[in-house]
Amino acid sequence: MRQMELSRAFTLMEPGPVVLVTTYDSEKNNIMTISWTMVLDFTPQFAITTGAWNYSYTALRKNRECVIAIPTVDMLDRVVGIGTCSGADTDKFAKFKLTPMPGKVVKAPLIKECLANIECKVIDIVQNYNIVVLEGVLAHANPMRKEKRTIHAVGDGTFIVDGRKLDRREMMASKLPAGL
Amino acid sequence: MRQMELSRAFTLMEPGPVVLVTTYDSEKNNIMTISWTMVLDFTPQFAITTGAWNYSYTALRKNRECVIAIPTVDMLDRVVGIGTCSGADTDKFAKFKLTPMPGKVVKAPLIKECLANIECKVIDIVQNYNIVVLEGVLAHANPMRKEKRTIHAVGDGTFIVDGRKLDRREMMASKLPAGL
Repeated sequence: MRQMELSRAFTLMEPGPVVLVTTYDSEKNNIMTISWTMVLDFTPQFAITTGAWNYSYTALRKNRECVIAIPTVDMLDRVVGIGTCSGADTDKFAKFKLTPMPGKVVKAPLIKECLANIECKVIDIVQNYNIVVLEGVLAHANPMRKEKRTIHAVGDGTFIVDGRKLDRREMMASKLPAGL
Repeated sequence: MRQMELSRAFTLMEPGPVVLVTTYDSEKNNIMTISWTMVLDFTPQFAITTGAWNYSYTALRKNRECVIAIPTVDMLDRVVGIGTCSGADTDKFAKFKLTPMPGKVVKAPLIKECLANIECKVIDIVQNYNIVVLEGVLAHANPMRKEKRTIHAVGDGTFIVDGRKLDRREMMASKLPAGL
């Protein structure tokens, strides 16, 4: 076993699903691409890492709500495009031909083209680590969608696409919430 | 788009890489399986969600160090096995035929069979959310290993294996740290 660069260690950790996070700042909709996410126990609470370097952060902090939208591999170039321009000077819904749909609970929009959308409230911001704690309040899925493979950012500009699914439900039964 | 069960929303978020976290409690080594992880910016800092429900938590809190080991798909049954028994009554290295190797900085062991290992210090515990903040201090990889595909827990007992890798480095160049 050889030592590797510590600065690349995060590329081993990050490969979760890339998500799009929409906000509404009382004037306009915006979207950011986020791959720094974590679930908090078997709950609809999520943590995301973001901060003032993202234009969306102001809206997130002020209006304290957002939508987490789950894109799939056919949307990769849009996902990367969204992550490399700013809502400060770009209408990302228009630029990337995405369709905002009204949520039921929050004012931030759902993204019609995505596999699923989760309406969320901001319940806390852990300032020291730029961790925003979200509480999912309503979730939406698009079961008609054929492409279901999500994408996982490695963090170095490459992305891993979902491959095979393996089933270990029986082996894990004792550890899963009932009825999952 | 149809509403889906809120209780399943976390299954959309979780698919990050499943990791093994080793600890040493001054008497013995232990391992836990964790898929609730997040990177914190382009740094070697990581957040994991764990708590007193994991036997390893006491060692993590007391000795304030651990190793994050990255398993691959050929190790799935061991990863699930580790996650479904307790260090309270099981020597998991022996039971799952894994080889502990000494780290250079921390007393928690590396796992020889894994693709990579990251030695970590616990730098904070955000009690409200059971978030443990880790600082990676040394990383190790195993470049000779043929199987490199990691596994992503969906959270319902199924696992997604890494598929194709797509390259968008050029498109993302402006957003990545130099020299990555």
